[in-house]
Amino acid sequence: MQKRSIGIGLMGMGIVGGQVARVLREKADILAEHAGCPLVLRKIKALPVDLKRPLARELPADLLTTDEEAFFNAPDIDIIVEAIGGENPARGYLKRAMTSGRAAVTSNKEVIAKHGAELRALAQQKQVGLRYEASVGGGIPLISSFTYDLVANRIGGIYAIINGTTNYILTRMAKEGIDFPVALRSAQELGYAEANPENDIEGIDANYKLAIMASLAFQTEVRPEDIYREGISRVGSRDFRYARELGYAIKLLAIGKQINDTIEARVHPVLIPEDSLLAKVDGVYNGILVEGDLVGNVLFYGQGAGPLATSSAVVADIVASAQDILRGAGCRFRWQPDPGKKIRPMEEIETQYYLRLNCADRPGVLAQVSKILGDLAISIASAIQKEADAKSQTAEIVLMTHPSPEKAMQRALKQIAQLEVIKEISNFIRVEHL
Amino acid sequence: MQKRSIGIGLMGMGIVGGQVARVLREKADILAEHAGCPLVLRKIKALPVDLKRPLARELPADLLTTDEEAFFNAPDIDIIVEAIGGENPARGYLKRAMTSGRAAVTSNKEVIAKHGAELRALAQQKQVGLRYEASVGGGIPLISSFTYDLVANRIGGIYAIINGTTNYILTRMAKEGIDFPVALRSAQELGYAEANPENDIEGIDANYKLAIMASLAFQTEVRPEDIYREGISRVGSRDFRYARELGYAIKLLAIGKQINDTIEARVHPVLIPEDSLLAKVDGVYNGILVEGDLVGNVLFYGQGAGPLATSSAVVADIVASAQDILRGAGCRFRWQPDPGKKIRPMEEIETQYYLRLNCADRPGVLAQVSKILGDLAISIASAIQKEADAKSQTAEIVLMTHPSPEKAMQRALKQIAQLEVIKEISNFIRVEHL
Repeated sequence: MQKRSIGIGLMGMGIVGGQVARVLREKADILAEHAGCPLVLRKIKALPVDLKRPLARELPADLLTTDEEAFFNAPDIDIIVEAIGGENPARGYLKRAMTSGRAAVTSNKEVIAKHGAELRALAQQKQVGLRYEASVGGGIPLISSFTYDLVANRIGGIYAIINGTTNYILTRMAKEGIDFPVALRSAQELGYAEANPENDIEGIDANYKLAIMASLAFQTEVRPEDIYREGISRVGSRDFRYARELGYAIKLLAIGKQINDTIEARVHPVLIPEDSLLAKVDGVYNGILVEGDLVGNVLFYGQGAGPLATSSAVVADIVASAQDILRGAGCRFRWQPDPGKKIRPMEEIETQYYLRLNCADRPGVLAQVSKILGDLAISIASAIQKEADAKSQTAEIVLMTHPSPEKAMQRALKQIAQLEVIKEISNFIRVEHL
Repeated sequence: MQKRSIGIGLMGMGIVGGQVARVLREKADILAEHAGCPLVLRKIKALPVDLKRPLARELPADLLTTDEEAFFNAPDIDIIVEAIGGENPARGYLKRAMTSGRAAVTSNKEVIAKHGAELRALAQQKQVGLRYEASVGGGIPLISSFTYDLVANRIGGIYAIINGTTNYILTRMAKEGIDFPVALRSAQELGYAEANPENDIEGIDANYKLAIMASLAFQTEVRPEDIYREGISRVGSRDFRYARELGYAIKLLAIGKQINDTIEARVHPVLIPEDSLLAKVDGVYNGILVEGDLVGNVLFYGQGAGPLATSSAVVADIVASAQDILRGAGCRFRWQPDPGKKIRPMEEIETQYYLRLNCADRPGVLAQVSKILGDLAISIASAIQKEADAKSQTAEIVLMTHPSPEKAMQRALKQIAQLEVIKEISNFIRVEHL
């Protein structure tokens, strides 16, 4: 029996939920064309505080409920859209939705990053849809690319500028020569960074998004805690200056690599060649470079956040879920994690390093540093000795190494820190050639 | 009844067909994981000449046939992959495949550009799959983005560098200051341009790809003959020099715009701001910028051609078709062209213009040209008067106008050409601000 309409239950009436409700109402006709029948918003689970928002007054009163049971027991709901965010109770809601035979759509990166394996398994078991395009990169079609469009590829690498707040801050620092605290404060004033910015600037948000992408791209479970993570607060305006001199830009990258059956997954500031396309991804924009054995390098670019972009992905997921429900298609994707793939510990990675040292302004410093590096088989690709500061009698040395093991590099850093001539290891940033 | 395998019939054993056969064989295990059952290549329709190719010797002899009837009557074929190219007989093959209840996959831009409306209608009527991701942009997921991921958006614009050959030639001209014939010859020697390069350099290939994208993005039939088309052979090394001086790059763009219910569709060389991301898309790469009302600006970048990238898209289409067949899902997309949308005639567009004039080296020339433009309400944004050539007593004037109607501009060009002081209208290139 062909259904005459598809019912939607929406959980959450915040910025994302409110915008999704608006699109479903304003674009009802064209969405019905694509879906094959009308998509009808049948119930919204709101918080008491939401009932006072302007949107609540636009909506029929019986659409809104603050009661979880009333929401889940409402009749004729085929798709449940979770737009609450956070780990709990979202996880339970998504499980309940799928267990009761409804398709689930979510914009929630945290719950998918932490419980994606469990939720995908449940969707496949119950044969219902589970979609989360908005969880990574706003409206940029990344989840569907990894799930469907790139499945013929072995993905070798993902290099992603996936957090708009940190990219905005780094762009301001690069272009204006300002330091991190100034750029952060400005981003907060403009609403690009939150009052408590930890989630963004410490790379937690990027970590979640990488966990999701890597799990799909590499067909194995990559959990947030499997991912090495460093934020951007240590990057200084001087680093940008030296990086530019060496021909590099500095970006916070989420990196996933597949080398044989080993997965690398890490989020940290990176020097990338300034003529690479990722280096041109500025401001709040996201850029995601994917390397496949067949497709070669593909780059996706767009706004990674914001209610409009997010609603683009959520509503597309709703339409696709409706198409599947109308066709009785159950769960389309198949995700079978390969237990043979191992996450490589951070100390086993190998990359190039940029090193900025504050040292005594006297001869022989570079020789002492070079000796430590040489003894650990780390070879230097280039070195710049910089502006001595006459008052403090210090100078700055900037080094770029050839590819070297992280373990050796960490050992070198400890030894260099102990040199009498070294005042401070000012910074240490990894380098990637895309 | 759950099927135990999905049978594939492949038409064409050329570069694309051969590579698809290779991927299906080499990646059989992982593809079966994604599809839900083995994908078995059951029959290949080859030309007699193909039987002598190395690939033919790798394959079981009974897989190959040169006989169309034997191919279409082979048992257990669920998906027919057309990798022959060209309008006919591909069109008939795709229709026969779908009419006989099989899903169709094709990499053929010409047949989809010319007969997409008919083929999509047939797929919807027969409730079978029709997929053609490889027809535009190689392995870059554009067709699926327009068909599924961006459906919540009203697409306002598409700006696409979609032909690798012309972008390679223009990049060489821009970077090396060489002229078109030299760059073309070099591209031919390197295998980036064909011996008969007309299809690429005259914009025919880009025209087909724009017809496909615009038809999907704007939900109306945009046929190749609806699209204004100009190739790149008139662009000279001097144009690159002046463009750079003005802060622009020159690219061959396929442009689609939706303004109210009117569609603009055109392929021609364009000056674009040199700091735009599209201006950085160099060499054989493709870059496609899409403007949506929700998603904002999204850019896709990658290799637009080549057997590997093309096979990435074709095989993903095969897997998706198999997933649908296993679920009895029929045809997932819905494409209902809106007859109310009209294609705007080229003379009704409005844009900025770059104009290079070869003129007599004497006072008052600019005044005469300005008067013609002014009388037609075309205002000048900037003007450069350039290097007089003492021997021929000529000089060069370069003008950039403010946005003006094409009709007025064409009239102005006719009048300017008739001025006694004008030796030649050396070039005339439209300008877009992305």
